[in-house]
Amino acid sequence: MDTKNWQGKEFKFGLIGGGQLGRMLIQKAADYDLHVHTIDNDPDAPCSKISSSFVVGQLNNYNDILNFGFDKDVLTIEIENVNVDALEALEKLGKIVVPSSSVLRIIQDKGLQKQFYLANDIPTAPFVFADNKEDLLTKITSFPVVNKLRKGGYDGKGVQILRSESDFSKAFENASILETVIDFEKEISVIVARNANGETAVYPTVECYFNEDSNLVELLFSPANISAKLEKESKDLALKVITSFEMTGILAVELFVTKDGKLLVNEVAPRPHNSGHHTIECNHTSQFEQHFRTVLNLPLGSTKMISQGAMVNILGAKGYEGPVYYENIDKVLAQQDVFCHIYGKEITKPNRKMGHITVRANSTKEAIILAESMNKVLKVKSM
Amino acid sequence: MDTKNWQGKEFKFGLIGGGQLGRMLIQKAADYDLHVHTIDNDPDAPCSKISSSFVVGQLNNYNDILNFGFDKDVLTIEIENVNVDALEALEKLGKIVVPSSSVLRIIQDKGLQKQFYLANDIPTAPFVFADNKEDLLTKITSFPVVNKLRKGGYDGKGVQILRSESDFSKAFENASILETVIDFEKEISVIVARNANGETAVYPTVECYFNEDSNLVELLFSPANISAKLEKESKDLALKVITSFEMTGILAVELFVTKDGKLLVNEVAPRPHNSGHHTIECNHTSQFEQHFRTVLNLPLGSTKMISQGAMVNILGAKGYEGPVYYENIDKVLAQQDVFCHIYGKEITKPNRKMGHITVRANSTKEAIILAESMNKVLKVKSM
Repeated sequence: MDTKNWQGKEFKFGLIGGGQLGRMLIQKAADYDLHVHTIDNDPDAPCSKISSSFVVGQLNNYNDILNFGFDKDVLTIEIENVNVDALEALEKLGKIVVPSSSVLRIIQDKGLQKQFYLANDIPTAPFVFADNKEDLLTKITSFPVVNKLRKGGYDGKGVQILRSESDFSKAFENASILETVIDFEKEISVIVARNANGETAVYPTVECYFNEDSNLVELLFSPANISAKLEKESKDLALKVITSFEMTGILAVELFVTKDGKLLVNEVAPRPHNSGHHTIECNHTSQFEQHFRTVLNLPLGSTKMISQGAMVNILGAKGYEGPVYYENIDKVLAQQDVFCHIYGKEITKPNRKMGHITVRANSTKEAIILAESMNKVLKVKSM
Repeated sequence: MDTKNWQGKEFKFGLIGGGQLGRMLIQKAADYDLHVHTIDNDPDAPCSKISSSFVVGQLNNYNDILNFGFDKDVLTIEIENVNVDALEALEKLGKIVVPSSSVLRIIQDKGLQKQFYLANDIPTAPFVFADNKEDLLTKITSFPVVNKLRKGGYDGKGVQILRSESDFSKAFENASILETVIDFEKEISVIVARNANGETAVYPTVECYFNEDSNLVELLFSPANISAKLEKESKDLALKVITSFEMTGILAVELFVTKDGKLLVNEVAPRPHNSGHHTIECNHTSQFEQHFRTVLNLPLGSTKMISQGAMVNILGAKGYEGPVYYENIDKVLAQQDVFCHIYGKEITKPNRKMGHITVRANSTKEAIILAESMNKVLKVKSM
């Protein structure tokens, strides 16, 4: 793409999805005079107040996405669950869509994703398909077993563990996967980017802790506490995944480290990801800047670490639902090396992702201690 | 201010002036769900595309500013030349205005500013007042002499040196100051902030080089290459200035270091300033975040240095005027430790400030070399 083309208001960068991931992209895109136009089904979505233009539309509606895309020069997503047929139609009209509809079609369906891993010699947990709940019940051979919806899951929803026959009632009705439960040593994540020239960039591996209750990332730290050998293997595997997809864009590759030190791909997300939020403060180029660099086929930015760090999600407190306020945010702001990101969601609900806190420190241990203490201080309540 | 109050769309943060300083404030304010509403006389001003709302109005027009302020909860500026009577009227209506109209009234008039320094024992270059050009001609006793307009100067305009009688023709017609030319060793700048609680925060001193042609900051580096004693004296002096003003807000204090090691206040700016742009990447809290923290009376952020660095302004190249494009921006983006900020001005003109580049490095010398080389690579041209 010619650099004469992508700056200024004539060039329209279309963003499908108006949540926090898009918002952090827009904040950084302003450094390059990139004009970001956004569609989301929520008129008060986090991107609504800072987009160059903002329209309300259903992300899974063919006509809404097609209409949105007509006058855009490039299109990208910040959420997977968008109408992929519309994206394909836009590609046929000559629009640049990142990631491509073909990649998105595979990733949207965890069944196709699993088959893709097998076909490309990418290690992943063993699995079987279930067409529906009835089919599923005939295919369970042991407990516990992971049950994942093939389509439509997000933010920890659409994934559950069935522990015994008494869990049959909650098994998913729609097409799903039964996956062997991996007794993992730890969960790690690698963010990797690739532009249309085929240039790739990979971030240092991070280590993640999930909240069993919400199934959301609760805390991560960078770099992961793993051997240099495993660090290299995890980066190589992430690069293998993105190049196998021949994908342009940014990809978060979530991995299990098994107790015998092997790596398995758990899930991927073809967009900026919760496990890369710390890159805003802890790495030279944030994942959000890397994202739009891939869309514009610009040189990728350095992924060099500036500081070790940790990130905690700011989740809606239990027992509160309604217009949000952040109790003690003053105390967090007064703290050195602590960086607060509030996403601008007007309504809090228990476990809703309302923001995140990143801590920079000289060691991941220090960073984790400070991040966890800040997370206890800050309370997301409703007025 | 209660933290329940300032977040979310009900709370309206009014920004007077929609240039690059406002734009960088908005980019960061999004991290706290602060809704920034902007007024500027240019419908395509840098803030126009990312403000929560944007209105066109004359900043020096009483009614335009009063009307803009009516429904805002707090008001601040990103340029000094605004209608101060309207701000005073808004204060009487109970609005929080930062900086206050009384401080702004003094700073807008370089004559009152000079008198204020004398009254408060703040060192500054000797001067006399001239009511008009005729008066000025009778008061010049030697050459060279600095001639500064009392009101309306900005970005290097309104300041000139008269070198001999042949320069009489260009002497300012309006009320101005004649100031002794200081044969300084170097020019340094200190950014200082103060909130309504009286809490202060001061950034490390930076050293600035001005372009004689444009009279604009051409390059700065942080920290300044001065003794620890002078560093302390310059910070203390900046604190003395802001506390003498009893000012809430952020203040850039530009200082001369004389050849015998004394400090003189040259100019002040009661807002984020070109000499603090590097704080985005080189300090824990950027001057833009510090600015809105002062407006909201939040705890001030740490000014701790993360890295040494240098900043160069990206100026419109000579010989080009019209819709802008940035030649070789790809080459700048590919460079590690280099951060590019393009302000989103649609039209370039010779010497117009179009953006800036910050470099982080292990030494200011390294940072300067890389910043200057990047500034040669990137060319601001018109299409």
